[in-house]
Amino acid sequence: MAPSTVNVAEYLFTRLYQLGVRDLHGLPGDFNLLACDYVGSSGLTWIGNCNELNAGYAADAYGRLRGLGAIMTTFGVGELSCINAIAGSFSEYVPVVHIVGVPKTVVQKKNAMLHHTLGNGDFDVFARIAKELSIAQANLMDPVTAPDEIDRVLRACYIHSRPVYIQLPADIVQKPVDAKLLDSPIDIETPKSDDEKEGVVADRILKKLYAAKKPILLVDAGAGRHCVEELVDSFARKTLLPTFIAPMGKGMVNEDLPNFVGMYNGALTPIDAWRDMVESSDLIMTIGNVKSDLNTAGFSYNFNKLNTIDLHFDNVSMDYAIYEEIYMRWLLERLVREFDSSKMRKEQTDLPVISRPPVAENANFSKEEITHEYLWPRLSSWLKTGDVVVADTGTSYVGIWETKLPPGVHVMTQILWSSIGYGVPACQGAAQAIKAEGSGRRTICFEGDGSFQLTVQELSTIIHHNLDAIIFVIENDGYEIERWVHGEKASYNDIPKWQYSLFPNAFTPTEKTSERRVKAYKIRTREELEVLLTDKEFSSGKGLHFVEMHMPRHNAPTSLINFTETLKK
Amino acid sequence: MAPSTVNVAEYLFTRLYQLGVRDLHGLPGDFNLLACDYVGSSGLTWIGNCNELNAGYAADAYGRLRGLGAIMTTFGVGELSCINAIAGSFSEYVPVVHIVGVPKTVVQKKNAMLHHTLGNGDFDVFARIAKELSIAQANLMDPVTAPDEIDRVLRACYIHSRPVYIQLPADIVQKPVDAKLLDSPIDIETPKSDDEKEGVVADRILKKLYAAKKPILLVDAGAGRHCVEELVDSFARKTLLPTFIAPMGKGMVNEDLPNFVGMYNGALTPIDAWRDMVESSDLIMTIGNVKSDLNTAGFSYNFNKLNTIDLHFDNVSMDYAIYEEIYMRWLLERLVREFDSSKMRKEQTDLPVISRPPVAENANFSKEEITHEYLWPRLSSWLKTGDVVVADTGTSYVGIWETKLPPGVHVMTQILWSSIGYGVPACQGAAQAIKAEGSGRRTICFEGDGSFQLTVQELSTIIHHNLDAIIFVIENDGYEIERWVHGEKASYNDIPKWQYSLFPNAFTPTEKTSERRVKAYKIRTREELEVLLTDKEFSSGKGLHFVEMHMPRHNAPTSLINFTETLKK
Repeated sequence: MAPSTVNVAEYLFTRLYQLGVRDLHGLPGDFNLLACDYVGSSGLTWIGNCNELNAGYAADAYGRLRGLGAIMTTFGVGELSCINAIAGSFSEYVPVVHIVGVPKTVVQKKNAMLHHTLGNGDFDVFARIAKELSIAQANLMDPVTAPDEIDRVLRACYIHSRPVYIQLPADIVQKPVDAKLLDSPIDIETPKSDDEKEGVVADRILKKLYAAKKPILLVDAGAGRHCVEELVDSFARKTLLPTFIAPMGKGMVNEDLPNFVGMYNGALTPIDAWRDMVESSDLIMTIGNVKSDLNTAGFSYNFNKLNTIDLHFDNVSMDYAIYEEIYMRWLLERLVREFDSSKMRKEQTDLPVISRPPVAENANFSKEEITHEYLWPRLSSWLKTGDVVVADTGTSYVGIWETKLPPGVHVMTQILWSSIGYGVPACQGAAQAIKAEGSGRRTICFEGDGSFQLTVQELSTIIHHNLDAIIFVIENDGYEIERWVHGEKASYNDIPKWQYSLFPNAFTPTEKTSERRVKAYKIRTREELEVLLTDKEFSSGKGLHFVEMHMPRHNAPTSLINFTETLKK
Repeated sequence: MAPSTVNVAEYLFTRLYQLGVRDLHGLPGDFNLLACDYVGSSGLTWIGNCNELNAGYAADAYGRLRGLGAIMTTFGVGELSCINAIAGSFSEYVPVVHIVGVPKTVVQKKNAMLHHTLGNGDFDVFARIAKELSIAQANLMDPVTAPDEIDRVLRACYIHSRPVYIQLPADIVQKPVDAKLLDSPIDIETPKSDDEKEGVVADRILKKLYAAKKPILLVDAGAGRHCVEELVDSFARKTLLPTFIAPMGKGMVNEDLPNFVGMYNGALTPIDAWRDMVESSDLIMTIGNVKSDLNTAGFSYNFNKLNTIDLHFDNVSMDYAIYEEIYMRWLLERLVREFDSSKMRKEQTDLPVISRPPVAENANFSKEEITHEYLWPRLSSWLKTGDVVVADTGTSYVGIWETKLPPGVHVMTQILWSSIGYGVPACQGAAQAIKAEGSGRRTICFEGDGSFQLTVQELSTIIHHNLDAIIFVIENDGYEIERWVHGEKASYNDIPKWQYSLFPNAFTPTEKTSERRVKAYKIRTREELEVLLTDKEFSSGKGLHFVEMHMPRHNAPTSLINFTETLKK
């Protein structure tokens, strides 16, 4: 009996399935059509987004929730259209597999003047570009090496949590490879640290911890991206260290922990006493900290490097030394195991009594209007465990800082990459991931009107695939964040007025309006917002609930106003 | 008195104005906000598109009509989002200036971890990418050299008709430069050919022409992109050569010329006798010919290279020799001047009597439905001189081949780059260019439903700027062109159903619906189409007329059906 085979496309898609992918985002195009034939038969659902940028954002959100997101585009025109999203995934450490259907190997070798090329016979140009924005690449020109190549890049994507790029030539799609190879799973375990070296590091960290007067813990993006939130939780619970989050760490720590304090954001830390706690600490242990401008209030961290221990994915910094190839995951596991609470003194982790005053009303606006001062604190009691909250770049991704989160809320923001328009497509990707997991948890999206205009059509995909989502579009008359940066009244910060609440219907075929469970709302007052938030059907998050929410122009979260000051520098 | 100065941004924008640009497409972003302040004061209108890809397409269309298009984006997120459009301009030889607002020079030099970066301190990565897709680049880090740098790249853009890339750091925007420099216009004249060399070439061409038995002329994309249509017209009128166009040359020759024959498209030339005329010719003179797959019916030109003379922008090929730095423009001028009709014999240019049968009805569809067989020939009598017709990739850009054009109709297609979604944004850019020229001519766009979904929001910009356009969205239930390539009934070639005719209203503020002169139509029959085409107000093209036009699924122009066969190879 001949050995059973699968073709290269099936091999690739099955590998994706094995790594948790259930849905393939992207658009069809002539160079990937043949590959599209094998998506469904490999167990994946083809999403078929409205455009490639949106598909890229969706795959990013999907990757943040499921450990791997995937997008398939066509050569040149398709792949370039999603490159901003891929760059965002690279910047923000999100695992996305970008598969590109490319021309047949025979045609490539001839340097033919094909459509979707620059007309100069250069078939490598798009791969050179992709190389700048991915950590591993494979051009599957040879079916013999294709399985190994696929495994290599998928492993890199998963482990390093960053995009990879795969070119799949049209004449390779159907080439057979040994199906048995699929029986050995791809090794996606984080590499082990050297045991002796890790021991030395752990020992040094623990000694410092026991000896410190006022140690604290600062949790940031890397904890979530490298999926060590549970270990961080165990470590925080066991050590009782006063625990802070950086802006990009929002949602990565259980805010109900008794030793959870709040957000440390350098000079813009909302409570002075919080800032003092961090900056006067003699041992600041950070996990996955990203020292970008918007995550540090303009590089305003104010403490001595000698007092810090920084745990990153694959290294530790301490006493000005870098310990390479010490993996956060295993080190945290060891620290949790080896930490001896009897060696700590109570006063080390005593929390001062800091009562945070409620967010003050903004006197410039009426108490009927939905202001940022009202909105974000209000959400605390409406959100619930399991919720995924997409907060787009602008007022939303800062506003959410003011929301005290229930445990286990996933906050999706792009504080480093900051690409407006991420919201609705990311909401689609997140809702798709939640559909795949079958958990029934809610996907909730907040996006400004300016941002919404970039990627509006992905509402259609949410409707088409019957996804569950609650979307708030903040109608506040333009690019509010930019008004604070520069040009408060400049017309270039205006946007065309749309009738937002009409879109869900326009994206729904007449005959299916009811069946598709799509509802649109237009609200202008707190009272109207309350009606929604207390409505059972709305709050269930089943179906698409689309809210055009009017908020006053030139109202923004205080943190955003201060934060735009740093942008001006 | 101190010498008067302008700042770097004003210098740049004024130079654009001097070269014919009146409108700057793009989106604001924090790194270009300061520059936005000087757009209006330099005489340009800021467009403010809905997203950067759309802005890029619009700038491309604008560049095709006005000799230069311009787009301004912000660092990283903005510039990457439009890169597909820029690549299209590069591939299709369209002059687009891409200005990117980038971080301050001081911040760049520090390799700071800024938002909109990859987080690795690399501030050059986006410039490296842009270099792959532009013919000249400038990073205006130094105000002293900025004017020269700006002039250099704008000159290259204009002359070579291809994109250039300019980085404008936020702290350079307001640096003063000598205003007097603006008094000397940028030299944008095509370089002169060496006179003796050009004489040799012209002489050789004319001798061949006089001696040939059946010479013909084949006009293609380069004629339009390098703006020599009038010279081509003079040459065709003077020589009386039987004149053909290639697909990308559609609209570049007056189809009413007595010596105009039709389209030569290799094996897929619609009339055998036309193909025979070209392929049996002993002297085929081509102007700006692009030998790409879709412009040659899959590389199916069938004639001897020894019988051809190819005129390109800056070189001539003849007898297997390349004559470099012989510029088409000057050579054509010389040929027109020196051509001696007395040396020609009448039989050389005699046109055989070829009657083209009317396009046959497709028996698979009812005569009430709007089929491609009906639509495209029908337009011949509706189109008029001056019209700009945007025909998006898919059924439209092939369908338009079946329309006999009145003289002076500009056809805008992307037969080489073939990026779907170009339609509506290109329509905005074209309509904007026409508004700038004040000619009142019409902008008409044909786009398939699949393509329309990629870039729908740019309808908003057309409405917001009160532009005049007639847009037909062909509702035929999915990616029709792909159904012919592969997967006729595959679900990945389906798209979500939209209620297209609702969009113009959703993109219009309630209070301004009437004032904005926006009308939407939904038509399903020839009769309904006739009502529109014979309606005076509709046909005036004033305001936005948006037509949701239902056409039967799996109906496509015969040329497209044949042409997709070549895509399968």
